[in-house]
Amino acid sequence: MRKSNMSELLVGSVEAGGTKFVCAVGDEHYQVKDKVTFATTTPQETLARVVTFFKKFPNVTVITVASFGPIELRKNHAKYGYITNTPKIGWHDVDFVGYLKKELARPIIFTTDVNGSAYGEYVAARIAQQPVDSLVYYTVGTGVGAGAIIDGQLIGTLGHPEMGHVLVKRHPDDLKFEGICPFHGDCLEGLIAGPTFEKRVGKKGQDVDQSDPVWDIMAYYLAQAVVQQTLIIRPNKIILGGGVVNKIFLDKVRLQFKEQLNNYVEVPKLEVYITMPLVENNGSATLGDFALALKQYNQK
Amino acid sequence: MRKSNMSELLVGSVEAGGTKFVCAVGDEHYQVKDKVTFATTTPQETLARVVTFFKKFPNVTVITVASFGPIELRKNHAKYGYITNTPKIGWHDVDFVGYLKKELARPIIFTTDVNGSAYGEYVAARIAQQPVDSLVYYTVGTGVGAGAIIDGQLIGTLGHPEMGHVLVKRHPDDLKFEGICPFHGDCLEGLIAGPTFEKRVGKKGQDVDQSDPVWDIMAYYLAQAVVQQTLIIRPNKIILGGGVVNKIFLDKVRLQFKEQLNNYVEVPKLEVYITMPLVENNGSATLGDFALALKQYNQK
Repeated sequence: MRKSNMSELLVGSVEAGGTKFVCAVGDEHYQVKDKVTFATTTPQETLARVVTFFKKFPNVTVITVASFGPIELRKNHAKYGYITNTPKIGWHDVDFVGYLKKELARPIIFTTDVNGSAYGEYVAARIAQQPVDSLVYYTVGTGVGAGAIIDGQLIGTLGHPEMGHVLVKRHPDDLKFEGICPFHGDCLEGLIAGPTFEKRVGKKGQDVDQSDPVWDIMAYYLAQAVVQQTLIIRPNKIILGGGVVNKIFLDKVRLQFKEQLNNYVEVPKLEVYITMPLVENNGSATLGDFALALKQYNQK
Repeated sequence: MRKSNMSELLVGSVEAGGTKFVCAVGDEHYQVKDKVTFATTTPQETLARVVTFFKKFPNVTVITVASFGPIELRKNHAKYGYITNTPKIGWHDVDFVGYLKKELARPIIFTTDVNGSAYGEYVAARIAQQPVDSLVYYTVGTGVGAGAIIDGQLIGTLGHPEMGHVLVKRHPDDLKFEGICPFHGDCLEGLIAGPTFEKRVGKKGQDVDQSDPVWDIMAYYLAQAVVQQTLIIRPNKIILGGGVVNKIFLDKVRLQFKEQLNNYVEVPKLEVYITMPLVENNGSATLGDFALALKQYNQK
């Protein structure tokens, strides 16, 4: 661990995933000063490790938690700050924010993992001198989720979005596949989440050849989500992240998008409109968490 | 025409539809002081009638135009204020705002017909002491369109939404119907716009018995749009307007919505969450136009 200058302004990030947690400390310029990654085990053990990490940094002012969900984000709700009805064993109804506030006595910002990533991409676009007013960030991995920003604000009045669970038009060559979503069967997540590879072609995504037609089927569905956002939010850009998305797949999604939209509305060149994350190595959420924390600190 | 008090603050509304125009003058309390309705003919003739109407009211300060589209809403665009690539004969590339500004020399607010209605419903909810932060307003008539408000702001960065053209999962009993959208075939509009009744069952919507299964098919599709908004925007309420929507159909949509969402996220009671417009007699857009004009006037 590097020593931090005690007078330096620092902020914290907790990327709370279902498999692993990434805790990080950053400075005013979004530079990571220290970082730790550990497996997600029981809430008691995992949250204690979060506390131990941040206790080493008394001058971390605000900490943003970007968590797997569903989580309660309505501030006037009795369970604000909780992970709520997750199927993840042991994590149902865990008072994430309450525990951290008690142990660390610092302001905690609470949002979803994809919201953290969306905000990170919003900031990254500014840093890259390609600022946008709005964007949507999808992750396609074990599940499918998304966050959206309009005029700098994350959207969601009644709670955070659950954009992975919309219904889509079925691909004619895929009508027999029932989908894997326990709630909806063949919603978007049920049709394109990572585990669908094993159900459809009997192997893991990373082992499926890029020429396998299953990729075209996946692109057909994901493109529908991109069309939806294009017609509903009319954002400046749409970012596709998560383990399932690679460059060849991205091109397939762009192609399907072009066909489906059929030039109905004007969009930027697809190479800049539908992209992979600007921040490399899955760092979008950490950057977004730092930026959200700095924003809150500076507003005070 | 009633005489208006010359010192009174007045605002204007132009509801510009493909079939008819409704021009209205209102006061600070959203009360209609005068109103005229005429058929949409050529742009020259129709816009001249708009000008003639408002010239009678020199103390109308700001006029909001809620127009059929597509229209150009990006203020930095060379064609800001135009009706752009509409299929409506004669109306392609008409400089709606430019003409009114030149003839009337007053500030003009320009938005879509559904945005005007969405804003009207937003204001109506406040007047009814049931304020909301966000809502989505759909119209299902000759076409399908929608406007959305988040925290009081109409959404759409690259232009106005075109929410009617999303793809949807096909109903198993409707797979042979190709849809009527010239751009997308079986997008939402292609499957549920008013003219689909004649294609599917050979008569106009108002003549189709409520027990005809075609209504269940339509509800299946419209419910998907409601689910989409529920999962993307998480709004406080979703309003279904337009000639196709009636109370029995609304109940069918609620039923399908409940099945499709499968309690995945919490929403208010469906009787208040999915509703018909609060403003009666298609008055939502006029109210919204008045309110948008008053908002701009008061900001100055």
